[in-house]
Amino acid sequence: MAAHPVSPLAPKSYPELPAIAGVRFATAEAGIKYQNRTDVLLMAFDAGTVAAGVLTRSRCSSAAVDWCRANLPGGVARGLVVNSGNANAFTGARGRESVEITAGLAAGALGCSTAEIFLASTGVIGEPLDAGKFAGVLDDAAARLADTPWIEPARAIMTTDTFPKLAGAVLEIDGVEVKINGIAKGSGMIAPDMATMLSFVVTDMPVAAEVLQALLARHVATSFNAITVDSDTSTSDTLLAFATGKAAVEPIRGLDDPRADTFGAALADVLFDLAIQVVRDGEGATKQVSVHVEGAVSDASAFRIARAIADSPLVKTAIAGEDANWGRVVMAVGKAGEPADRDRLSIRFGDILVARDGERAPGYDEAMTSAYMRGEELEITVGLGLGDGRATVYTCDLTHGYITINGDYRS
Amino acid sequence: MAAHPVSPLAPKSYPELPAIAGVRFATAEAGIKYQNRTDVLLMAFDAGTVAAGVLTRSRCSSAAVDWCRANLPGGVARGLVVNSGNANAFTGARGRESVEITAGLAAGALGCSTAEIFLASTGVIGEPLDAGKFAGVLDDAAARLADTPWIEPARAIMTTDTFPKLAGAVLEIDGVEVKINGIAKGSGMIAPDMATMLSFVVTDMPVAAEVLQALLARHVATSFNAITVDSDTSTSDTLLAFATGKAAVEPIRGLDDPRADTFGAALADVLFDLAIQVVRDGEGATKQVSVHVEGAVSDASAFRIARAIADSPLVKTAIAGEDANWGRVVMAVGKAGEPADRDRLSIRFGDILVARDGERAPGYDEAMTSAYMRGEELEITVGLGLGDGRATVYTCDLTHGYITINGDYRS
Repeated sequence: MAAHPVSPLAPKSYPELPAIAGVRFATAEAGIKYQNRTDVLLMAFDAGTVAAGVLTRSRCSSAAVDWCRANLPGGVARGLVVNSGNANAFTGARGRESVEITAGLAAGALGCSTAEIFLASTGVIGEPLDAGKFAGVLDDAAARLADTPWIEPARAIMTTDTFPKLAGAVLEIDGVEVKINGIAKGSGMIAPDMATMLSFVVTDMPVAAEVLQALLARHVATSFNAITVDSDTSTSDTLLAFATGKAAVEPIRGLDDPRADTFGAALADVLFDLAIQVVRDGEGATKQVSVHVEGAVSDASAFRIARAIADSPLVKTAIAGEDANWGRVVMAVGKAGEPADRDRLSIRFGDILVARDGERAPGYDEAMTSAYMRGEELEITVGLGLGDGRATVYTCDLTHGYITINGDYRS
Repeated sequence: MAAHPVSPLAPKSYPELPAIAGVRFATAEAGIKYQNRTDVLLMAFDAGTVAAGVLTRSRCSSAAVDWCRANLPGGVARGLVVNSGNANAFTGARGRESVEITAGLAAGALGCSTAEIFLASTGVIGEPLDAGKFAGVLDDAAARLADTPWIEPARAIMTTDTFPKLAGAVLEIDGVEVKINGIAKGSGMIAPDMATMLSFVVTDMPVAAEVLQALLARHVATSFNAITVDSDTSTSDTLLAFATGKAAVEPIRGLDDPRADTFGAALADVLFDLAIQVVRDGEGATKQVSVHVEGAVSDASAFRIARAIADSPLVKTAIAGEDANWGRVVMAVGKAGEPADRDRLSIRFGDILVARDGERAPGYDEAMTSAYMRGEELEITVGLGLGDGRATVYTCDLTHGYITINGDYRS
């Protein structure tokens, strides 16, 4: 793979996430596809760690996704193995064998059962993944486990990402400091339904697996499931959360515990931060765009209209060209297949009203709007005037960089 | 608008369509947006001409589309006015006034009622269209009507098109020669700040308006509604058919007339030919791609899966890069939201079986497949193994040319 220039939207620095009791990790170079970089992550959890997850709804899910789906109901985790460079997707019986071998090797290295091992793979689809490559690697990694620095796992899981993605939160619950650390990868094939989007979040909060699962499902809707880079949903989208329970507070046993909301809000912040980083590293991205839709007949309808706008190649290329082409937003609303009344439609770019009541706004100022479009973070707001439904979808522009990256990714 | 290089998929020559009794036309330079080229088409039909049409399903349809929708039930036509450079879409009350003025001018020039005038506009969305520009132009055009050459109307309706699109059929019905001529414009099924698909078909066959409408609706499904350039649906898509009834044969009065199938098949050929020309002039296109899906649970399901593949930016950029990246086809099948069993899936590129039973085909030959991808016309066939449903969608690749054209179309 050719190295691509770092996204102009990359963060200027990375957070130094703190150690979290109960989790250690190591990365390694298994040479699965990339040379001279880490491509395997082994994460080890102390006994008592619970797990929750949200997985791709693709009908062609990868072998690793199937493995996680089978293990999640158990709700307990001792290990996580992630590799980049090969998605082990659409690899048939060999893919299933590869996953079983990998889980066996990890379970052996960590001294647990394979039902406690979670797996994720990202990279090329359709190439058999030789699990033999993990043989010595996982044992060696298990001997080198450490609790920092978190940027190493974030780097090991990258594919076309141009920067590692980390986010964390520290909150106080019952007077005790509780931590949440998260990492993510993703740059293309991003239309999370859940999204090749991988993300792993670890907390020391004691929380029941069912509660963690419910909070994760709730907050993925407004984070990873509200982003799109290219409308293409991956076979491998995986978001897993692990709670080691090491913080010295009473566990959250149910959603009726008021602390579930406090903890959930912090979790939501971490997920949102990571999701936005994925958008900002969207393949070829030069601008981050928030598409707000309000006044729809329902939140679900608003979301579908926002997705139609955020997925539209014509809207995205106009943004890349810094062209205040709100006519294309009209087009995208029109094609969404959702209730909309052309003659009630209003559109704002930032705070600038560009259209209202089905036509260009009186006093529309092209020069002012064009100046706004030169910004790096843009807001598009569409008012439908039909009801109270609202939603926001986050995306990036569509540039020559996207074509360059994806016209020669595999070769 | 910058001039873009002519599509490498452009035809080497254009058909010289014959005159059709009962229709004459003239083109003019109204200076709506473009300089030094025709941008207005006036077509005049003899009394007795019937009309049928299929219009965009966009919720934000243009004023001209609304006008046609109101006049189509009348089923009769005496005139058609088409302009390029301004879509008169999302122009509110001014748009409706503009359409009424234009129809009035045309009716005056042709000596008929405004209910017999059809209108289509293509170009920028959201800019008011000054109908005053048509004032002298239509009277002048009405004085210059001719029955050839058909390439002139095809040229006058172009926007980002890089070549004029014409197709015709001559068939024999009851021993009499019957003609069908068609023109189209479009460079995306969707519209850049434009991109509208417009198509107008004229025949001398005597046929009832209801029959013409039924045949048009039937055959648009496998022609214009089976193509996609960029997944963006225009506010202005318009397909109109006019039958002057001048051929000396008994009229087709019902679909039970066996000649309806004969005539319908020829009409289907013309529509398909024009639709493929639109794909081959897809913005930035360098390859024409036919996506076949078979073995789906229904034809509708097959169509949605074929659309998901044909709309996928990752599939289209891989094709642009001549990369036999069938993993992305798997991804697109998976995201379509339709019944699919990963482990029964088969994929062929041309005649080459690349995947079957949910994994790479035994004996898969990368070199041979890569050689196939260097062709200009590609076939991708996906077998689902679930039922008898089948569909084909036609598309093009996604290249730097698309970004260049659409990153600066309006400015």
